[in-house]
Amino acid sequence: MAGNTFGKLFTVTSFGESHGAALGCIVDGCPPGLPLDAADLQADLDRRKPGQSRYTTQRREADQVKILSGVFEGKTTGTPIGLLIENTDQRSKDYSAIKDQFRPAHADYTYMQKYGVRDYRGGGRSSARETAMRVAAGAIAKKYLHRQLGIQVRGYLSQLGPIAVETVDWDEVSNNPFFCPDAGKVAAMEAFMKDLNKQGDSVGAKITVVASGMPPGLGEPVFDRLDADIAHALMSINAVKGVEIGAGFESVAQLGTQHRDEITPQGFLSNHAGGVLGGISTGQDLVANLALKPTSSLRIPGRSVDVRGQPVEVVTTGRHDPCVGIRATPIAEAMLALVLMDHVLRQRGQNAEVQHQVPVIPPEAGT
Amino acid sequence: MAGNTFGKLFTVTSFGESHGAALGCIVDGCPPGLPLDAADLQADLDRRKPGQSRYTTQRREADQVKILSGVFEGKTTGTPIGLLIENTDQRSKDYSAIKDQFRPAHADYTYMQKYGVRDYRGGGRSSARETAMRVAAGAIAKKYLHRQLGIQVRGYLSQLGPIAVETVDWDEVSNNPFFCPDAGKVAAMEAFMKDLNKQGDSVGAKITVVASGMPPGLGEPVFDRLDADIAHALMSINAVKGVEIGAGFESVAQLGTQHRDEITPQGFLSNHAGGVLGGISTGQDLVANLALKPTSSLRIPGRSVDVRGQPVEVVTTGRHDPCVGIRATPIAEAMLALVLMDHVLRQRGQNAEVQHQVPVIPPEAGT
Amino acid sequence: MAGNTFGKLFTVTSFGESHGAALGCIVDGCPPGLPLDAADLQADLDRRKPGQSRYTTQRREADQVKILSGVFEGKTTGTPIGLLIENTDQRSKDYSAIKDQFRPAHADYTYMQKYGVRDYRGGGRSSARETAMRVAAGAIAKKYLHRQLGIQVRGYLSQLGPIAVETVDWDEVSNNPFFCPDAGKVAAMEAFMKDLNKQGDSVGAKITVVASGMPPGLGEPVFDRLDADIAHALMSINAVKGVEIGAGFESVAQLGTQHRDEITPQGFLSNHAGGVLGGISTGQDLVANLALKPTSSLRIPGRSVDVRGQPVEVVTTGRHDPCVGIRATPIAEAMLALVLMDHVLRQRGQNAEVQHQVPVIPPEAGT
Amino acid sequence: MAGNTFGKLFTVTSFGESHGAALGCIVDGCPPGLPLDAADLQADLDRRKPGQSRYTTQRREADQVKILSGVFEGKTTGTPIGLLIENTDQRSKDYSAIKDQFRPAHADYTYMQKYGVRDYRGGGRSSARETAMRVAAGAIAKKYLHRQLGIQVRGYLSQLGPIAVETVDWDEVSNNPFFCPDAGKVAAMEAFMKDLNKQGDSVGAKITVVASGMPPGLGEPVFDRLDADIAHALMSINAVKGVEIGAGFESVAQLGTQHRDEITPQGFLSNHAGGVLGGISTGQDLVANLALKPTSSLRIPGRSVDVRGQPVEVVTTGRHDPCVGIRATPIAEAMLALVLMDHVLRQRGQNAEVQHQVPVIPPEAGT
Repeated sequence: MAGNTFGKLFTVTSFGESHGAALGCIVDGCPPGLPLDAADLQADLDRRKPGQSRYTTQRREADQVKILSGVFEGKTTGTPIGLLIENTDQRSKDYSAIKDQFRPAHADYTYMQKYGVRDYRGGGRSSARETAMRVAAGAIAKKYLHRQLGIQVRGYLSQLGPIAVETVDWDEVSNNPFFCPDAGKVAAMEAFMKDLNKQGDSVGAKITVVASGMPPGLGEPVFDRLDADIAHALMSINAVKGVEIGAGFESVAQLGTQHRDEITPQGFLSNHAGGVLGGISTGQDLVANLALKPTSSLRIPGRSVDVRGQPVEVVTTGRHDPCVGIRATPIAEAMLALVLMDHVLRQRGQNAEVQHQVPVIPPEAGT
Repeated sequence: MAGNTFGKLFTVTSFGESHGAALGCIVDGCPPGLPLDAADLQADLDRRKPGQSRYTTQRREADQVKILSGVFEGKTTGTPIGLLIENTDQRSKDYSAIKDQFRPAHADYTYMQKYGVRDYRGGGRSSARETAMRVAAGAIAKKYLHRQLGIQVRGYLSQLGPIAVETVDWDEVSNNPFFCPDAGKVAAMEAFMKDLNKQGDSVGAKITVVASGMPPGLGEPVFDRLDADIAHALMSINAVKGVEIGAGFESVAQLGTQHRDEITPQGFLSNHAGGVLGGISTGQDLVANLALKPTSSLRIPGRSVDVRGQPVEVVTTGRHDPCVGIRATPIAEAMLALVLMDHVLRQRGQNAEVQHQVPVIPPEAGT
Repeated sequence: MAGNTFGKLFTVTSFGESHGAALGCIVDGCPPGLPLDAADLQADLDRRKPGQSRYTTQRREADQVKILSGVFEGKTTGTPIGLLIENTDQRSKDYSAIKDQFRPAHADYTYMQKYGVRDYRGGGRSSARETAMRVAAGAIAKKYLHRQLGIQVRGYLSQLGPIAVETVDWDEVSNNPFFCPDAGKVAAMEAFMKDLNKQGDSVGAKITVVASGMPPGLGEPVFDRLDADIAHALMSINAVKGVEIGAGFESVAQLGTQHRDEITPQGFLSNHAGGVLGGISTGQDLVANLALKPTSSLRIPGRSVDVRGQPVEVVTTGRHDPCVGIRATPIAEAMLALVLMDHVLRQRGQNAEVQHQVPVIPPEAGT
Repeated sequence: MAGNTFGKLFTVTSFGESHGAALGCIVDGCPPGLPLDAADLQADLDRRKPGQSRYTTQRREADQVKILSGVFEGKTTGTPIGLLIENTDQRSKDYSAIKDQFRPAHADYTYMQKYGVRDYRGGGRSSARETAMRVAAGAIAKKYLHRQLGIQVRGYLSQLGPIAVETVDWDEVSNNPFFCPDAGKVAAMEAFMKDLNKQGDSVGAKITVVASGMPPGLGEPVFDRLDADIAHALMSINAVKGVEIGAGFESVAQLGTQHRDEITPQGFLSNHAGGVLGGISTGQDLVANLALKPTSSLRIPGRSVDVRGQPVEVVTTGRHDPCVGIRATPIAEAMLALVLMDHVLRQRGQNAEVQHQVPVIPPEAGT
């Protein structure tokens, strides 16, 4: 209940501060028999890792994950999987200046009010560094979903500040440091980021995550709907301020005849629902967007107060991403995979005996 | 895990189908000593009740709630509160025509794929009728929050189809059937709905919910952040497709210097965060938006398939709201109140002894 | 977390006080497709019902249960099952005398210290009347386990005060008001109870519950072992002070060579383990004993204090069982069934794909 | 749900196999501000550690615990506490002989049936080695309970095979390798164990755990009673087959007038209840007994089957405790402390505002 466990059947419980000895998590509920080694996790960790381009923080963490349990002779055993990443590049001195200050838009003040104490080094527990464990755990879920069920979880940057992508070419996503699926926008993004760095400012971003190859039937009405759990998962990522499923906020101005996804025996004719009806997956692609706010650590001074309530001017000089959204794509994928994995296990528990006499509707007519 | 319980310390577990014998819920974890009677719940139920204007379904339910336990001599005792609403206006015959059809944008197909069976009468468990119990339970939370902690939870319709409100006058919200806070928009909304009814179409809506008088410190990082739990709660409401906290999707195009809410000893200078930093409340107003899709039940025929996979044309002739968003305001308030109540209890559990030596920052400078 | 929900995947959440308007519960997670009607539940409720013999309380409750949801056209739908029993024989006046007294061995004092308030009528929430809903919910689990998996859950009184049964004849259990499986002990029990009634005293009892037809593999190491969950379930029944699995406390003085259940290809050679090894079912009969303390409500005066801390003499004149253990057999069966049902669903979730290449060991050699 | 998390508000999630790289756990929900360092945990780990006397396994593990997070400048911060013990003495070769055998009374067969795979080295996850993390986590709870609330959790060996202790001298417990509180029985225990070792057999034991300085009001009726949660906790320890609260199985033959703990203004006159009424603590000492079965690993051959169902003779040659009960005292203390800690936080959540107007009854009259 203290909030560091995610999921109900496939659970991830994590620990670790930005500048502590290590980060770790325990993945419980993984089905036995899944081939797994550290390299499976490392691939996604490397996609998230800082210091890979000039557009992300220059903090260099090896971010080398170790599997400490739950895998025997190369396969999962059904027992909990302990994961560990040791912190190697801590530079705690960078942060002592802000020990008594509440940086605007950071969690400094709220942690202090909640706990009466905080580990101020690099944001402590509130640092995005915590998301490394999400990515590691999510990689297990992604592997299981893909290998056992044919579900593929992928994501891309759909908007960087004012620059929205116009086409989605999945092959392009890994070709640039932005996870941008539109080759035509990469140069504009580079120019924008270069300018931003010069100003010392930061910017928001929008990420889109998609799960393809979905089976119908995942999601538990009424409170633990698949879309509700996805909203929870994505909103729990640092800096996220909004989540949409399918048409999202565009639904507000749509008419019922526009929004409803009509069906033919050949398949659904559209996907405004984003793959969920009544909180249960339809078998269409699951599509979710998330909005990330601009990085809060800026070189441009901002007004704030200190722990005594006195006015201070805050300037951040440490190493920070000018757009936290850029590295959020693998994190969002991980969280979506964790939700799906949890619901796969939940669906099996209660509905293992269901006889499916109703034909499956193809996700898209004509495909 | 089958999804019908909401919350962790202050829990609501509900049951009931649209056309079954009754709806009910159990509220567990309510602190003892709260003065409570059925009238406290009825007030919000009446705000949600159908049949109150020409813009909502003409189904007439008395929606009279009974308290069956947990209250003794007018006060809560700390034991579970059983609530019951008997269904009085069921008209099950209306629905037999769609027994074998999957209505587009409805949960018919997904329930069938999940459970292999469904109560097709009026949507069964997937009907928005289920939200009556959310409102009843939420009214308990609202009363506790307001009476014991001074937290006020309110909501309004911020957009109806293309018509967005421009001013927020809380006193106006109860003056019109739309929960519209902008008197200047009511006539346009009426005209729009009249036209929509004529066409047999439906439309989406946007609702805004706000909690004022918030204490700092509510919310459990890292997974059960206050904003993540709010996203879960609001996305679990029927027809909701998007949730924003504070600036929401506007954050995408904001610069860090625009978004960050600077602080002076006199208070926060803006509230783009929507009252949450690092998943923990700041003490500013909590502000969330939710997008509701258009009602799926339309008089205009739509293409679909039946349980055998054969093409059918679906027309809905029952009694339905042309805009489900209109009645969603009290539901959204209820869900927000349930989340806050849960986090109040969670915060007390772990952090009861915290000495608050840090001055509280006023929610707004100059107020 | 307020303690009124049992189970994790197959959950029962209950409400209701002894002298309130009604008792009820919500069973969530029941697989769809199970034929179910109220008569299935009533049979076990009638076994538990008071007023059936001179050895149990003369309070007469119809204890008629209604199914309010979750069943459609005679089968479960996978949605929550709402159950209700209205209280018809409340006689609240009987209890006003003890309003300000703390009866020894009752929960009066502890509820008052916990909640600062209590519904003193008939014990309120702490009354054994609450167990009616456990029996109703357990009947659903029992039916599913038996019908779908061939698991039979049964129980009997193994000791009444000083009188221990010597033989177990399952057919005899329903032939006498004690749930006694040994026809040769019934007369002695009758004589003992008659004498006890004359004295105004009460006595303890031991119940044994058994699940036959068990599959191997149920139970989740390390904390949610099957035996640990059974211990929790049985100890949560009013008046229970001890729980044993298999050899139980006899294990203390056993040698390893005595206790270990050796195995041959024809089956296990003994069952000191009581059907559980490492927290996981072996396929042998699950066997558990529970000890129930004597009824606390006595006609013989006892010393206590009142709400002001002043000494009082307490005499109970209401209607009470002289041995609460007698009616506990169906309650214990219900709790065991609920645990098994929960673990059936849990096992399916994580281990649905396990290929069982290891031969199943018969529960008993030679059977 | 896969069973590796204990508690609801104060949670322990653990991982690790007997012969894996490391054991670890995450303690979530610890209140901030508690002074804590590794030495606080090490003291209890050392009490549990093998290899300390000839009566326990000669496996030598340093069992050196590291705190990886959640503590900053010597105090807990409210964030999750990551704990790690690296396995240093693994000797995996010892166990390869039993790779394909199911040792009687061990979890070999049940793990295989559950998961289809098992880490056979030293019992893998089913090894008692897992309890090291319980002891480490429990030490945090013990410290908090003692320091903040004055609750002291202690235990002793109350019976070793046929030898029952007759007096309880708390000071004696740490003077002998048995945790025996009766100096007069130590020599007999030594002789018994020496003889047992010669034979190659093992024996059971009974442990008693006590919490003194209890506040009234802990425990959540009806399912999460304090005694029910204690039963769950203690039964979840390896080899435990029975749990009693207070008078336990003696209650069966007691009369109501014997069992009920009468009360005077000077205090309770006896403690058959073991400190719990209606599932809620009374303020008297919490007293629980647990029965542990004999060690299953014996040098005396036993009959069993292998993974192909063929008969085999099993002889264990590894390093094992001839009485697992001896080292169980610190484990049982840890589990009791974890339950109490959880209920302290739960009680605070819901009942923080309760005004205690009822005088507290002293735990014992005359003390």
